[in-house]
Amino acid sequence: MKLIRFGSPENEKPGVIHENGDWIDTSGFGEDYDELFFENDGLARLTSWVDEKANDLPKIDKNTRLGPPIKKPSKIVCVGLNYAKHAAESGMQVPTEPVLFFKATSAIVGPNDDVIIPKNSKKTDWEVELAVIIGKKASYVEEADAMDYVAGYTLHNDYSEREFQLEKQGQWVKGKSCDTFAPIGPFLATKEEVSNPHDLDLWLKVNGELLQNSNTEDLVFNIPELVSYISQYMTLLPGDIISTGTPFGVGLGFNPPRYLNPGDVVELGIEKLGSSKQVAKAYTK
Amino acid sequence: MKLIRFGSPENEKPGVIHENGDWIDTSGFGEDYDELFFENDGLARLTSWVDEKANDLPKIDKNTRLGPPIKKPSKIVCVGLNYAKHAAESGMQVPTEPVLFFKATSAIVGPNDDVIIPKNSKKTDWEVELAVIIGKKASYVEEADAMDYVAGYTLHNDYSEREFQLEKQGQWVKGKSCDTFAPIGPFLATKEEVSNPHDLDLWLKVNGELLQNSNTEDLVFNIPELVSYISQYMTLLPGDIISTGTPFGVGLGFNPPRYLNPGDVVELGIEKLGSSKQVAKAYTK
Repeated sequence: MKLIRFGSPENEKPGVIHENGDWIDTSGFGEDYDELFFENDGLARLTSWVDEKANDLPKIDKNTRLGPPIKKPSKIVCVGLNYAKHAAESGMQVPTEPVLFFKATSAIVGPNDDVIIPKNSKKTDWEVELAVIIGKKASYVEEADAMDYVAGYTLHNDYSEREFQLEKQGQWVKGKSCDTFAPIGPFLATKEEVSNPHDLDLWLKVNGELLQNSNTEDLVFNIPELVSYISQYMTLLPGDIISTGTPFGVGLGFNPPRYLNPGDVVELGIEKLGSSKQVAKAYTK
Repeated sequence: MKLIRFGSPENEKPGVIHENGDWIDTSGFGEDYDELFFENDGLARLTSWVDEKANDLPKIDKNTRLGPPIKKPSKIVCVGLNYAKHAAESGMQVPTEPVLFFKATSAIVGPNDDVIIPKNSKKTDWEVELAVIIGKKASYVEEADAMDYVAGYTLHNDYSEREFQLEKQGQWVKGKSCDTFAPIGPFLATKEEVSNPHDLDLWLKVNGELLQNSNTEDLVFNIPELVSYISQYMTLLPGDIISTGTPFGVGLGFNPPRYLNPGDVVELGIEKLGSSKQVAKAYTK
């Protein structure tokens, strides 16, 4: 199943993309895609409900804005330097255990919303990433069991302000958490939609030029390793996002570096997870 | 006003501490202390409601468990090395701009709940901190206006696993986010309860021995500076927590270092914000 959320920001309604491609309004199901939904076996219940009612449910106009396909996750755990060539372009070693950082959930927007270049930013950069959505509470999970805790996958652009991230004192979070820095979607693909999440092409273009082009088979730490590892340090809640890291080709890695300017168009996609597009805009009060 | 939440974990109800010391159940007000409450001027509305009804409201038995005084904040932004002597004991420089990191909100517990020493932890440490609760959405706030965005203050023990934080690769978040590592409360004191938040004694004892003993006048970056600074990098939402850093006297700073063992009793407090007490327990499945 492919879950979407549609409508104006903060007022999104839940829907699904039907096998025939139609967008269907599932707000009649009475639950949005949040922590409680995943925790209470919402995916299975929604699947049955949609199977029964699909033909009677309202269709959504495909010009409608898409929001993030999950509602208010408790956290976004990001994995740093998880593709070898990207670690090299960042001037860093491939880590021997996963590097973790958080991104503020207040950065989440819809997949095709504008990305706002923050005030005083000169180094706003892109990062196409495969994001994993947690399906049930995960604490001290074994690798062998880890996939049981995964609800599905979605596309994420882990926008990063490199000066804020690397040249201000302290931790990376400052460069990762600006508003609009986490466009998520277009849809959440449930696990059964993706037979092998470790063999998906992923790519990103800026103004039509292909800058990132890789495959998730190059992940240093794969999904079960990440879910298990993270769950040793914190409890992952249903709906939480793990963003698995970006491949080679970010702006920081060019010589000289390339960063976004107002008007630039960023497009990205992952095989089986669709594509998204953000237009960069200057911050204006 | 002093806000509390009481009852069993995840099922807390809202209340207030009356001027006469009574604990009063305010669940009849119909709102819990979450993002919406603060956003919709809940503090002012609750104050009027309580003023009108206080004598008719049910009292709470003071043996009742207290939960965290706010419900599910979107984020906990922590400030590192924000007392000069603590930076020195950590072997680090006093920063020239605030060092920020996040703590998972899944770590939040009530003020007197047990602290669980994580599996494989040898270095669980304490950090008494003044936490600021945000009252309205804050983005690019000027220092001069910053206090308008503060709802109040509370006590926080920013538990930290030093091996996870400092000896694993990457960012501090791994050592800050374990379950139970954020006991918050006993109460949220609204702004008018604390005439000067930059002159509050704060202290922490382990097994009765006073190990941290300082005053918030020693903060390197004060509250308006922190609110303004953080709001340049992310939007602070109503109910969000800023934990302003810990003074000298953490376990890491001793020679040899001192860390918590099962059975240890940690007590801490801040002038005008009450005290809390956690008993350390070993992790058991």
